[in-house]
Amino acid sequence: MIVDPAQTTRADVYRLVIRCIVPRPIAWVSTHDAGGIANLAPFSFFTGVASAPPSLLFCPGRRGEAGDKKDTLRNVEETGEFVVNLVTEELAERMNETATDYPPDVDEFAVAGLTPARSLLVGPPRVAESPVSFECRRLDVFQVGKGGAGGAAIVVGEIVMIHVDDRVLRDGKVDPERLRPVARLGGMEYTRLGERFTLVRKKYGA
Amino acid sequence: MIVDPAQTTRADVYRLVIRCIVPRPIAWVSTHDAGGIANLAPFSFFTGVASAPPSLLFCPGRRGEAGDKKDTLRNVEETGEFVVNLVTEELAERMNETATDYPPDVDEFAVAGLTPARSLLVGPPRVAESPVSFECRRLDVFQVGKGGAGGAAIVVGEIVMIHVDDRVLRDGKVDPERLRPVARLGGMEYTRLGERFTLVRKKYGA
Repeated sequence: MIVDPAQTTRADVYRLVIRCIVPRPIAWVSTHDAGGIANLAPFSFFTGVASAPPSLLFCPGRRGEAGDKKDTLRNVEETGEFVVNLVTEELAERMNETATDYPPDVDEFAVAGLTPARSLLVGPPRVAESPVSFECRRLDVFQVGKGGAGGAAIVVGEIVMIHVDDRVLRDGKVDPERLRPVARLGGMEYTRLGERFTLVRKKYGA
Repeated sequence: MIVDPAQTTRADVYRLVIRCIVPRPIAWVSTHDAGGIANLAPFSFFTGVASAPPSLLFCPGRRGEAGDKKDTLRNVEETGEFVVNLVTEELAERMNETATDYPPDVDEFAVAGLTPARSLLVGPPRVAESPVSFECRRLDVFQVGKGGAGGAAIVVGEIVMIHVDDRVLRDGKVDPERLRPVARLGGMEYTRLGERFTLVRKKYGA
């Protein structure tokens, strides 16, 4: 099958792309607005960036046909701060409750019965129930698209503090079997981790 | 455990971050240089971006302590084009062979015994053995960090053509069980897909 995006609806191309770029880790992003109202929402266009500075990114898309900015993006633009919390099997249902498009004055911590815990260096709270949280300061926000429907921002954050629950550690390292992360597939599907294996990268000339 | 990146080595923070942001899908990126020498390399800082234009990104890090640009980045800067191929269980070993840091004049297709197939709209070949390939034109390349060791680029590409092998389709949709993607964990670990489940997102007010 060959799909030419120029000959296909935007929605159909998007649905195909998110079925192919899998499995995607989930950034459960907590922010607050200038008035202090907390927000929490999941984003699966999420990955690491650089090691100097230690950084990650996520890509909030514009909302619906109006192309409005999501609360998360508006809050990051206003405050310059956010926390990325990780989603585990145990937290998947509550993560999904925070995925609904609520009005800006709704605190998703309260909706989903989650506990906001004070961050050390940034204003937004982290999710106490999440085993890993990255406190982040905005490095850059890049726009992709024309700023309307279908567009997105790339939010790049410097990781300024990392919280790791000791229960997901084994010999001082984060153990995938203890972390039990949930990842996004296409449609409304998610996946648990599967069978693991090791590949050793060869050095050139070795 | 609380890790303060300001008090921790860059390498230790990086190793922790890549153990946490998991599982990461793998972009197996084919490019060529101005002289036509093909390059193929895997990147696990990879995700989708926007639906208008349909787009994806990957983040090539700077190489080693010298902070040199990787061949892939140099090629994208020179030609403005690349192809993202997906990695399946069957292709994992060959993907790993292309992860070695070869000199620029080495064609990783030849090293790993892979077949370059002509792309329709861009110059770089796709990997014939990969079931999904995205032909991309560079939209933007953003720099993160000071351009030296530990820095990275964010390469954003517009998806201009999509190739999907019919064998990974079921009822016209890409089926994760037929795609069998491989994803990156921390250390030298990879994972297969695990058990899947569905979560239905509620609409506000519904």
